[in-house]
Amino acid sequence: MRFTFLGTSAGTPTAQRNVTALALNIDDNRDWYLIDCGEGTQHRLLHSHHSSAKLKAIFITHVHGDHCYGLPGLIASANMSGRTDALTICAPDGIEQYIRATFAHTDVHNLRFPLNFVRSDADDFHYCDNAIDISAIAMSHRVPCFAYHIKEIPPTHIDEAKLEALGVPRGPQWHQLQQGQDAILDNGDTVHASTVCSPAWPARKVVVGGDNDQPSLLHNALQDCDLLIHEATFTEDILAKVGPQYMHSTAAMVAKTAADTNLRHLILTHFSQRYRSGNSSKNKHKNQHTVSDLYKEARQLYQGNLLLAEDLQSFQLEKNKRLVKL
Amino acid sequence: MRFTFLGTSAGTPTAQRNVTALALNIDDNRDWYLIDCGEGTQHRLLHSHHSSAKLKAIFITHVHGDHCYGLPGLIASANMSGRTDALTICAPDGIEQYIRATFAHTDVHNLRFPLNFVRSDADDFHYCDNAIDISAIAMSHRVPCFAYHIKEIPPTHIDEAKLEALGVPRGPQWHQLQQGQDAILDNGDTVHASTVCSPAWPARKVVVGGDNDQPSLLHNALQDCDLLIHEATFTEDILAKVGPQYMHSTAAMVAKTAADTNLRHLILTHFSQRYRSGNSSKNKHKNQHTVSDLYKEARQLYQGNLLLAEDLQSFQLEKNKRLVKL
Repeated sequence: MRFTFLGTSAGTPTAQRNVTALALNIDDNRDWYLIDCGEGTQHRLLHSHHSSAKLKAIFITHVHGDHCYGLPGLIASANMSGRTDALTICAPDGIEQYIRATFAHTDVHNLRFPLNFVRSDADDFHYCDNAIDISAIAMSHRVPCFAYHIKEIPPTHIDEAKLEALGVPRGPQWHQLQQGQDAILDNGDTVHASTVCSPAWPARKVVVGGDNDQPSLLHNALQDCDLLIHEATFTEDILAKVGPQYMHSTAAMVAKTAADTNLRHLILTHFSQRYRSGNSSKNKHKNQHTVSDLYKEARQLYQGNLLLAEDLQSFQLEKNKRLVKL
Repeated sequence: MRFTFLGTSAGTPTAQRNVTALALNIDDNRDWYLIDCGEGTQHRLLHSHHSSAKLKAIFITHVHGDHCYGLPGLIASANMSGRTDALTICAPDGIEQYIRATFAHTDVHNLRFPLNFVRSDADDFHYCDNAIDISAIAMSHRVPCFAYHIKEIPPTHIDEAKLEALGVPRGPQWHQLQQGQDAILDNGDTVHASTVCSPAWPARKVVVGGDNDQPSLLHNALQDCDLLIHEATFTEDILAKVGPQYMHSTAAMVAKTAADTNLRHLILTHFSQRYRSGNSSKNKHKNQHTVSDLYKEARQLYQGNLLLAEDLQSFQLEKNKRLVKL
């Protein structure tokens, strides 16, 4: 699974960071998924290798503009580029209304492809295709907001030696078992799919948090999770100054949850624009805050693999669960 | 008058060009005006010297997304930056509804500053402040679209020698005359403001066209105009291929109108993404179209000062009506 950060700034863009958007590919597959779509996401995509024609589905965490104002332009541009495949947009209440009102007022009629809106704030929300399975976890923010829990569906490995030993003839019954269905042999014996099939490799599991001031809400999901991507808008000192009303996390809050759940890999993103790139020791004379302040704060509480996102940076979560910066 | 191109691409952004937006300053004054606001305009502004706090008014030519999808983000970011001054938005029907619907669905309530929407498609539309006077001219496009006719209001020069010869005492009556009001002297004589006041320099006049397939509609406005900034989406050969249904101009169409009206300065913008930057002779082996194709086509018909816009390029129309690339 490959994650490409298209925007890592909270609220407003900076000269270095765009507002939130994250692309997900399943390894080298050109199909991809988009999680959040702040203004200028289509501009960032011009500098990555993601084609709007290959975008399978979009997942929006919440209705704030820095997470969704790029949707109308992205969709309109995909339409102008000739896309005809349906596009699924999983989002909480408000996003469909926003898109439909925008298009109604700005002369976008008769898209060449259907938009399939799915309410991700519904109790039974579940997205599933042949590659991934995604569910939503309610976060704590100023508006309804959701983390997305992404589970890979690895291809099925079939134990050929065992099938031959059991006398299952190569052909339709092999295919049936590979699809997860039990097979009944000519001699009346039943072969259970679960005894001869297994995932080709252990499924990779990732949580991508939305805006959220209670990372501990992810405690259960993180019990069996390889990677958490979560906002860390502030350090503790800045949160104390600005107050809790924006309902964002500090680096320390996320790090504590990651430590409590023995999380292997943590990527922080969605930084307040006051944190400049680079190291604070270099910028000390200017009394500037830098992203290294966020890193240091998180590092004090979390000893796992800790990374801070940059725009257009890609990370590969490999099948062996290692996380590699590309 | 200083024009800074924030986006020069038609329809969709490219890696080099953003969609349409144009900033106008009156010389070195930090107050500025924005004409059109495609997605990513606030991002371009991070690379210019325009502060959202100093934005006096926005003028939108028409409702197509590549001319207005940057508005919600620009306004929301100005709000987060602490702007409190009212913002005037002059736009045709649809833009106010689009902004209000967007904000209603995306949790933007209680902006710190009022938005004053003015319908620029109204017959009596007129924007005027102490520096400029702007009216609208109907264009020919797929939706109602307007060019903006911008006339500078130069400061008033008062003829001091004449006032003293006429015996007008220095004081309130000088001020009254400078405001354009006639003054009655103690001896009963009337001094007409028009006889002692004149513009400090000849007003600069500029037309900024919207999307339009009939540049000749600007014929009257261009009779007394220093500079036209107009879209030239296609060359004639490409228009013949794609057909007229998008209702855009070719470089030749604009150049012909400029020549017919003896226009002094013409800047073309809003180029189809098929036209790459650079010179076609260098790109010939790739059979690529370049913006030099547009230049050559216009040059054949128009012998005035012809320029093609680039993103983040500024042009100064000086008081002596010279146009200088900054």
